[in-house]
Amino acid sequence: MLIIDIVKKHEPITSEEIAAKLNITRAALRPDLSILTMAGILEARPRVGYFFAGKNTKSLLAEKVRSIKVSEIKAVPVVIKEETSVYDAIVTLFLEDVGTLFVVQEDGSLCGVVSRKDLLKIAIGNADIRQIPVSVIMTRMPNLVTVTMEESAFDAARKIVEHQVDALPVVKLKEAEGKVKYEVVGKVTKTTITKLFVELGRV
Amino acid sequence: MLIIDIVKKHEPITSEEIAAKLNITRAALRPDLSILTMAGILEARPRVGYFFAGKNTKSLLAEKVRSIKVSEIKAVPVVIKEETSVYDAIVTLFLEDVGTLFVVQEDGSLCGVVSRKDLLKIAIGNADIRQIPVSVIMTRMPNLVTVTMEESAFDAARKIVEHQVDALPVVKLKEAEGKVKYEVVGKVTKTTITKLFVELGRV
Repeated sequence: MLIIDIVKKHEPITSEEIAAKLNITRAALRPDLSILTMAGILEARPRVGYFFAGKNTKSLLAEKVRSIKVSEIKAVPVVIKEETSVYDAIVTLFLEDVGTLFVVQEDGSLCGVVSRKDLLKIAIGNADIRQIPVSVIMTRMPNLVTVTMEESAFDAARKIVEHQVDALPVVKLKEAEGKVKYEVVGKVTKTTITKLFVELGRV
Repeated sequence: MLIIDIVKKHEPITSEEIAAKLNITRAALRPDLSILTMAGILEARPRVGYFFAGKNTKSLLAEKVRSIKVSEIKAVPVVIKEETSVYDAIVTLFLEDVGTLFVVQEDGSLCGVVSRKDLLKIAIGNADIRQIPVSVIMTRMPNLVTVTMEESAFDAARKIVEHQVDALPVVKLKEAEGKVKYEVVGKVTKTTITKLFVELGRV
C-alpha cells in the first residue's frame, strides 16, 4: 500500500509531506492515516511525524528463538557413576548412541562430563582402560558449563558455541548437607539444537 | 484494532458478521475493510469472507530458515588421504579440533567420511591402529550423505537429523574419465547449525 511504502522510505514524515507526495489534501489523507495508526502499522509521534511500527522479520525471529525454553527441548541424559571404567563408559556411549556422558556421585548429583574426545584420547594411550575410572579423565565441577530449565534455547546454544562443548547438562539446584548440588534433569546438545532448527523450518 | 482481532478470531468471516459484532452498518464498516484489505492486513475471498493475511511468526521463521544457503554457512573441511593410518587420523582430529574427517582419493575426490565414533570403536579393539588405514573403517561412497552449495541450511540440518550424522561434506559434482566425482568444498556440521541458530537469536 502506497502510504505504508512512503512512510517506510521517508520516516519520520509528517502528514503534510505524505499528502504532498500523494497529491491529495491532508483532509483526504486523515482517515487512512488514523486507521493505519490504530492498526499499529504506523506510529505517530507529535511534532516529529509518522514511523513504520511493524516489527521487522529479524527481531520477530530473534524473539521467537529466545522465547523457546530449555524445558521444552531438553533430551534425556545418560548418566554413569564416577567409578565406571573408561572401557565401560565407551561401551555405554555406543549402546546408548550418545556423544556425551554425565557423571554423577552416589547421591545422584552431577560431578563431571565425559566426551567422545576425552574417551578417544585415553583409548589411544597405553593405559589399561578397563582399570581406569572415568573420574580420572572427565571434566569436573566447577569447570562444567550447565543450563537450567528456565533458560532459553538461545542461551543454551550460545553456551555450546562459546565454550566449544557438544552438550550441556540441564541442572536443578538442590541443597544437601549445607552444600549446593546439581541434579541432572536433562541435556541440551548440538543435536537438540539441530533438531529444533529443523522444526523451525517446517511449515 | 478491533476489526483485525475479530477477523483473526472468527476467520473466515463476512462483512455482515463483522458489522453485526461491532453494532455498526456495513456501509460504515466498508472504508475500514477496504483499507485493511489494500494494506494486505486482511484478505477478502469472494463468497467466503475475510481472512487475516498478515504472516505469522512461524511462517516467517520457516521462510528465513529455508532461505539461508549452504554456501553462506559452510565451514572449512579437514581432509585426509585413504592411506592415512587410523592413528594419524586421530592425531589430525585433535590437532585440527574437528569431529569429522573427510577422506579423499589421489585426485582429490571424496571417497569416505570418518567420525569420532568410527575412530573410538577401532581404538578400543586390539588392532594396531598405526598400521590400519582409515579406508578400512570409514563410511564409503555411495553410502555418504552429502549436500550442495545451492541447498538450504534447512535441507542440511534435515539430512543431519534424518541420517543421524554429525557432519555433511559440501560437494561439487565434476566429471573425470567419464565418471561423476565429488569435490569436497566445505562442510556443514551440527556446530555450523548451532552457530547459525545463535545468529538468528541475535538482535
